[in-house]
Amino acid sequence: MKTYKHGGDVYSYDVDFDFSANINPLGMPESVRRAVEQSIADCVNYPDPYCRELTAGIAKKENVKEQNILCGNGAADLIFRFVLAKRPKKALILAPSFSEYEGALAVGNCEVYYYTLSNQNGFRLTEEFLNEITEQIDVVILCNPNNPTGRLIEMSLLEKIAQKCHDTNTFLFLDECFLDFMSDGEQRSMKKHISHNSNLLILKAFTKMYAIPGLRLGYCICSDTNLIEKMRASSQSWAVSIPAQAAGVAALKENDFVQKTVSLIREEQQYIASELRSMGILCYPPSANYIFFKEEQGIYERLLKKGILIRSCHNYPGLCHGYFRIAVKSHEQNIMLINAMKEVIKEGSAYGKNNYDTRNNV
Amino acid sequence: MKTYKHGGDVYSYDVDFDFSANINPLGMPESVRRAVEQSIADCVNYPDPYCRELTAGIAKKENVKEQNILCGNGAADLIFRFVLAKRPKKALILAPSFSEYEGALAVGNCEVYYYTLSNQNGFRLTEEFLNEITEQIDVVILCNPNNPTGRLIEMSLLEKIAQKCHDTNTFLFLDECFLDFMSDGEQRSMKKHISHNSNLLILKAFTKMYAIPGLRLGYCICSDTNLIEKMRASSQSWAVSIPAQAAGVAALKENDFVQKTVSLIREEQQYIASELRSMGILCYPPSANYIFFKEEQGIYERLLKKGILIRSCHNYPGLCHGYFRIAVKSHEQNIMLINAMKEVIKEGSAYGKNNYDTRNNV
Repeated sequence: MKTYKHGGDVYSYDVDFDFSANINPLGMPESVRRAVEQSIADCVNYPDPYCRELTAGIAKKENVKEQNILCGNGAADLIFRFVLAKRPKKALILAPSFSEYEGALAVGNCEVYYYTLSNQNGFRLTEEFLNEITEQIDVVILCNPNNPTGRLIEMSLLEKIAQKCHDTNTFLFLDECFLDFMSDGEQRSMKKHISHNSNLLILKAFTKMYAIPGLRLGYCICSDTNLIEKMRASSQSWAVSIPAQAAGVAALKENDFVQKTVSLIREEQQYIASELRSMGILCYPPSANYIFFKEEQGIYERLLKKGILIRSCHNYPGLCHGYFRIAVKSHEQNIMLINAMKEVIKEGSAYGKNNYDTRNNV
Repeated sequence: MKTYKHGGDVYSYDVDFDFSANINPLGMPESVRRAVEQSIADCVNYPDPYCRELTAGIAKKENVKEQNILCGNGAADLIFRFVLAKRPKKALILAPSFSEYEGALAVGNCEVYYYTLSNQNGFRLTEEFLNEITEQIDVVILCNPNNPTGRLIEMSLLEKIAQKCHDTNTFLFLDECFLDFMSDGEQRSMKKHISHNSNLLILKAFTKMYAIPGLRLGYCICSDTNLIEKMRASSQSWAVSIPAQAAGVAALKENDFVQKTVSLIREEQQYIASELRSMGILCYPPSANYIFFKEEQGIYERLLKKGILIRSCHNYPGLCHGYFRIAVKSHEQNIMLINAMKEVIKEGSAYGKNNYDTRNNV
């Protein structure tokens, strides 16, 4: 059996409920589904390599110029394109964080420096990080909120980081793929700095909000048009399929859906967090549509036996066995998960496998 | 207006008939269309990063091991992955040939040596080419039949090239994307050498035969599993979308469709070639689903005015203005194209624009 390092691997396991991938519990909007269906007949043509209609829509929504946008075959495609276009020699990334950054930096033969977040302060990024940004560092990659921890970076710190990057001629690659799920996501975004900071790139995805990870669609915003064009040339011309482009165009018109999602996520993340805490589980403050917690390792296998897949985070640099990430899903499914967790923790306890010390001493 | 260097750009022009992209005139098989439609609901999941079902199907069809196959977001994705995984310093390619090779080699900072095919012998590859394969060359990239010329490389020459590559420790990247359209494509394929030659990679596409360029699906075959795994790691984990994987699985079951296509292409390429020749146009021997010819440059614009887009090949290294490629389409559309060409050549002649010398002296 092939296994891989990410969540969402419903192909390796016999799973009824996938809590390992962070997808909108409301599913794909009907308008998006319809747009994809209608686009099938067009697939006898090559896709528009410039994603013109989609790019125009994104520019309008994000209030940036079209030439500052590049669409990709999922946000992950753009991480690799960025590394191939920028060719950093030394990069600074967080541990833990999304692992495709390391994958892309490895392809670019880039030396990676890890800034290990501490469980002592709940994996929060603090001003200490500023000291790590030096003239030797070509690129800093950050994810806000961070994946898998869900921890947010405060705007005041982000602005100091951007300033330090400017002072040290370091490029700031900022992944905001999960900010859309937050009611104050717009205020928390560094987008407002794009127009006057050509040293900043912001990564965004359609995947999570519109529940279309299987279609692959992401984009990035950067005012360095030279970099954007280099990224465009760093891989094939037709990376974004016709169904993905059609889905994106339809998705941009979905305002109510986004609002509804944001409300649902806020309610459900509070529900799950309070339930986990009432079980004595160390649960980190949730922000987006996933929740990060610490528990003894055995619950992973015991949940899997019940057909529930959660994300074990042991393979993230900076983490070890016993850290998990779960997606926020519908209330019904979240109740089901909580009940299942209560059961497997009880089972573990009965078998003497449940290490309450570990759970309570952090 | 943005224009780009390939055919199939129906987004930059107001076009009724696109003869610039080489897609199966029979269109997308109904079974493929249905599979894509049914896959939309699954797009709320991430794609299988290993394309397990599709890879198993390809392995069976091609009679190779699953670990010798890598699927990509179109064949073009795999050209870039190959360069990033192999990291050649010096590559030898043909001029003219498919331009994504150069694009990928540029991303890999690879020095490119062009072997310029000669119009004196109708752009055929000859044994002279063997002298160019030296120990200094890390990779040879060939396309059989070549795009845009349609010229085939004889099996005896291909085997000598493979032997010379072996002797000089040069890797042979062989693009066979258009061989499927030939009745003797199977005999003309170097696939039979894959199992005992780990220095050979064969590139294949679903795009052309099954008329799904908008979906993006290609694959490659190579017995060097280390290279395959490096290519897998050279870009994101989820490059092949769920609709593309579903389309591929369905397409592999389409035997009659392929046979019908091969017959149609053979008949229609003969029809077009004989019509072009009867107009006094220098038309190179067709092999796959496209035809390469020489004519004065003005016909491009005059056909475009009639809503017909053909591929001007002036931007291929080794070619100049006056070389064109047209796709073989349905008989009805081919008649329409021939009639339109007769008209525009007459127009050109009336305006004194038609250079008969150029057309006849080669």
